[in-house]
Amino acid sequence: MVDILHRIATATSSPDAVYQALSTRDGLAAWWTTETTGDTEVGGVLQFRFDAGGFDMKVVELVPSVRVLWEVIDGPEEWVGTTVNFDLTQDGDWTVVNFTHAGWKEPVEFMHHCSTKWATFLLSMKALVETGKGTPAPDDVKVSNWH
Amino acid sequence: MVDILHRIATATSSPDAVYQALSTRDGLAAWWTTETTGDTEVGGVLQFRFDAGGFDMKVVELVPSVRVLWEVIDGPEEWVGTTVNFDLTQDGDWTVVNFTHAGWKEPVEFMHHCSTKWATFLLSMKALVETGKGTPAPDDVKVSNWH
Repeated sequence: MVDILHRIATATSSPDAVYQALSTRDGLAAWWTTETTGDTEVGGVLQFRFDAGGFDMKVVELVPSVRVLWEVIDGPEEWVGTTVNFDLTQDGDWTVVNFTHAGWKEPVEFMHHCSTKWATFLLSMKALVETGKGTPAPDDVKVSNWH
Repeated sequence: MVDILHRIATATSSPDAVYQALSTRDGLAAWWTTETTGDTEVGGVLQFRFDAGGFDMKVVELVPSVRVLWEVIDGPEEWVGTTVNFDLTQDGDWTVVNFTHAGWKEPVEFMHHCSTKWATFLLSMKALVETGKGTPAPDDVKVSNWH
């Protein structure tokens, strides 16, 4: 099993704004993909759609201002069964997000791609929280020929 | 052992421009850190310096237009002994870079941070190759309070 790891921090004195960006449809649509639908409650399923397909995520855990945990239940074969976790902590005037996309079976080239894309989306979330404007798909950062 | 993985591609019909960015002092200084010194040959040691410290990399392998491999011989404790590998392949009008920073002992929070930073630096390298201008330190993208 191999994992994608990232860490960003937003210049915000309370983690609630980050938590809202991670746990509401409007928040998620403003930094990951504008095509976000579904049920945001624990046990519900969120649908994230992109030009090239998408992911269905079961909401496994929600701890306000502390954690958001999803399990991938549909999407690319490599993603199904993996988990996506956002851990929030406060460090002075910063809200720190430690991110893990865990449980990949193999470090395939697609995993390399997704690691880079997650970094750009997390920076989109940082921009959303700090400035009010993210860059969700379809206006996301193009990192390669696999856009 | 855990690894940092990334994949980017540059819109360039030959991998040589990417290889130059990865294997020359001027190239490296234009996307990673302006404070790049040392010996670029196999067996040589490159010094990369940042406000908060830096890394000494032994050049282990150079295959023009194909691969650049370094071993970290000095720097933060978590980095020493790890390897940094850039694999280049051509895919039509794109040069694909598969990146691996391998051999981390533990998935510590600093590894999360470095994973996100590597993404931003690889995108700086992509911009350099495609536009002639990267964003090396000290003008690199700020991802957190650990800048």
